[in-house]
Amino acid sequence: MIILGIDPGLAIVGYGVIEYSKGRFRTLAYGAITTPAHTAVEARLSLIFRDMNALIEKYHPDEMAIEELFFNTNSTTAIAVAEARGVILLAAQLKGVRCFEYTPLQVKSSVVGYGKAEKKQVMMMVETILGLEKAPKLDDTADALAIAICHAHTGGSILKRFYNLP
Amino acid sequence: MIILGIDPGLAIVGYGVIEYSKGRFRTLAYGAITTPAHTAVEARLSLIFRDMNALIEKYHPDEMAIEELFFNTNSTTAIAVAEARGVILLAAQLKGVRCFEYTPLQVKSSVVGYGKAEKKQVMMMVETILGLEKAPKLDDTADALAIAICHAHTGGSILKRFYNLP
Repeated sequence: MIILGIDPGLAIVGYGVIEYSKGRFRTLAYGAITTPAHTAVEARLSLIFRDMNALIEKYHPDEMAIEELFFNTNSTTAIAVAEARGVILLAAQLKGVRCFEYTPLQVKSSVVGYGKAEKKQVMMMVETILGLEKAPKLDDTADALAIAICHAHTGGSILKRFYNLP
Repeated sequence: MIILGIDPGLAIVGYGVIEYSKGRFRTLAYGAITTPAHTAVEARLSLIFRDMNALIEKYHPDEMAIEELFFNTNSTTAIAVAEARGVILLAAQLKGVRCFEYTPLQVKSSVVGYGKAEKKQVMMMVETILGLEKAPKLDDTADALAIAICHAHTGGSILKRFYNLP
């Protein structure tokens, strides 16, 4: 199974594509979609949509695992992240990629074995699990790979939020 | 100029299409895109995207005016609304429809002349300004028409948020 992990954002969308088969991981690609600051939101969203489509067409993921959002802090940024997340979910849906979401706690528990693990620990475990020679440049990319690993580990269960909204 | 007013949401997207020329309004269409509850968010987003595309193809709006979001209350719903809003902005951008956004305060000030006007007053003024024979069934639809009127009145100025995000 090919899994696309996504750490959503408007400025940076971290992504990681892994293949998981019989308990073994193979890393196909990782990186980030970036959009220029000081540009209209709708233009940035269309760049994300274009690049998501290209990623999906290139790697044909079976499933997408994406970070769930919480709005505790900085709500202006949070709105923008959610808007980007909507476009990312749309891209997956239009191409028939099943969507799953995980909280940061679930991801850390699954990858490090400890829900309050620090970013550095997550990154180290991602490198170890996937046998990466080069560490991902960005936290967002490491997080995306971590989400993909989490999905491989858990087998995926769509959270209630998806179905309980009015 | 043809203006598409949008009140964004995941369950209900209110829309109103008006033509504004030489100080006169003509109402072309109004209603709502609705999506079924208890359905995966990504499926609902794709319905909104499909119907937004159909609306834009049918009425060829020059500009879209959409309500700005604030996250003070119910943040779970707010995330979903922002995700829908992202998809709506994307649909407009992909079809070359310029996007503008307004706060509820701006809309009420422009339509009723009083920023703290009640929903009922807004609805009455929308009916009067557009000479509607039938009041819109939904608040969301009335709000969408109000946003379109606001945009016609103000001529449109993209808010700073669009450009100041990191």
